[in-house]
Amino acid sequence: MQRGFFITLEGGEGAGKTTLLANLQARLRSQGHEVVLTREPGGTPGAEAIRALLVTGSADRWTALSELCLFFAAREDHLDRLIRPALARGAIVLCDRFSDSTRAYQGQAGGAGRAAVDMLDQLIVGTTQPDLTLILDIDPAIGLKRAAARRGHEDRFEGKAFAFHTALRAAYLEIAATYPARCAVLDAATAPQELADVAWSTLNARLNLA
Amino acid sequence: MQRGFFITLEGGEGAGKTTLLANLQARLRSQGHEVVLTREPGGTPGAEAIRALLVTGSADRWTALSELCLFFAAREDHLDRLIRPALARGAIVLCDRFSDSTRAYQGQAGGAGRAAVDMLDQLIVGTTQPDLTLILDIDPAIGLKRAAARRGHEDRFEGKAFAFHTALRAAYLEIAATYPARCAVLDAATAPQELADVAWSTLNARLNLA
Repeated sequence: MQRGFFITLEGGEGAGKTTLLANLQARLRSQGHEVVLTREPGGTPGAEAIRALLVTGSADRWTALSELCLFFAAREDHLDRLIRPALARGAIVLCDRFSDSTRAYQGQAGGAGRAAVDMLDQLIVGTTQPDLTLILDIDPAIGLKRAAARRGHEDRFEGKAFAFHTALRAAYLEIAATYPARCAVLDAATAPQELADVAWSTLNARLNLA
Repeated sequence: MQRGFFITLEGGEGAGKTTLLANLQARLRSQGHEVVLTREPGGTPGAEAIRALLVTGSADRWTALSELCLFFAAREDHLDRLIRPALARGAIVLCDRFSDSTRAYQGQAGGAGRAAVDMLDQLIVGTTQPDLTLILDIDPAIGLKRAAARRGHEDRFEGKAFAFHTALRAAYLEIAATYPARCAVLDAATAPQELADVAWSTLNARLNLA
């Protein structure tokens, strides 16, 4: 059976992931692909219940290690009940954040350590690694300003100190350097349509969507 | 600074842990010890919020790996915000269930594997291992009948198949054999007062409470 494609979007707050995902979804659907658009933490009823614990409340509500375990609990549910079945039937899964966010937020900026994240990633994600990861790179001063404009009640991570967001950006770039075959860094300061065009070219250059 | 003592109670459903804990708490307090009586999953506001996800709903609500991560997310919060501070000031912590329940329920009976539990235990619990673990051993046919009599809404694990509870009992006995210096197996089919007397003798024989 042909396995579909697993594409993840990563980046700090206000990088433009949601807008880009909608654009990629429309282009892929217009070509006749089945597209499953989803997000983390969340994507399934169980994982969304865990999301509520993670993205609301005060910035210091959880230690980085508690967050780490909550993210992987949600990820396991998401993989088991949505992502793996979709890939098995040949769909293209577009996911807003995945393990690289855990590497950046909890592993690096949060201080849980990359080794702990990689250990849990091996246990929970295993061989279901993304085929392509688009990392939207943006100066956190710009990203946080954008995020503030749409700020709702899910602002727990946005509420962390500016140094945290600077560490995040560095962490994403380091991840891209560690996994060059899987990751592509895109300049998210460009206009949304230009960003979407670059992302679309990257996607077609890296994956054989047929 | 003198570290207190960390005592955990383990066993299947309806083994009599709650009654025994109340008895031990009273005896220890009458000797002038500060006693912190707590439970897992839970014990702190964050961990109790995670508990709600774990102990309610249908028996197949989560995979064993999701449960595993949720239990350790709650355990990290419990250790960081209640158990370690209490031990640091010299208190005796009495905890209703701890990592051995995860080893038995998720690791063995649930199928997540003991290696995965031990890996997370090393990451989250680290050196804060219990000084003494009392394992209340009971025939699941008797335990489940007792548990049914008090059954409330937190019955997700009680709702698992009988074979699960038989596997649980075997898992606890295997844990006791693996960690003999820390664990003591007590016959939970005896009368509550007799069980409490045996537990109290064991506690004083194993720990130097002074």
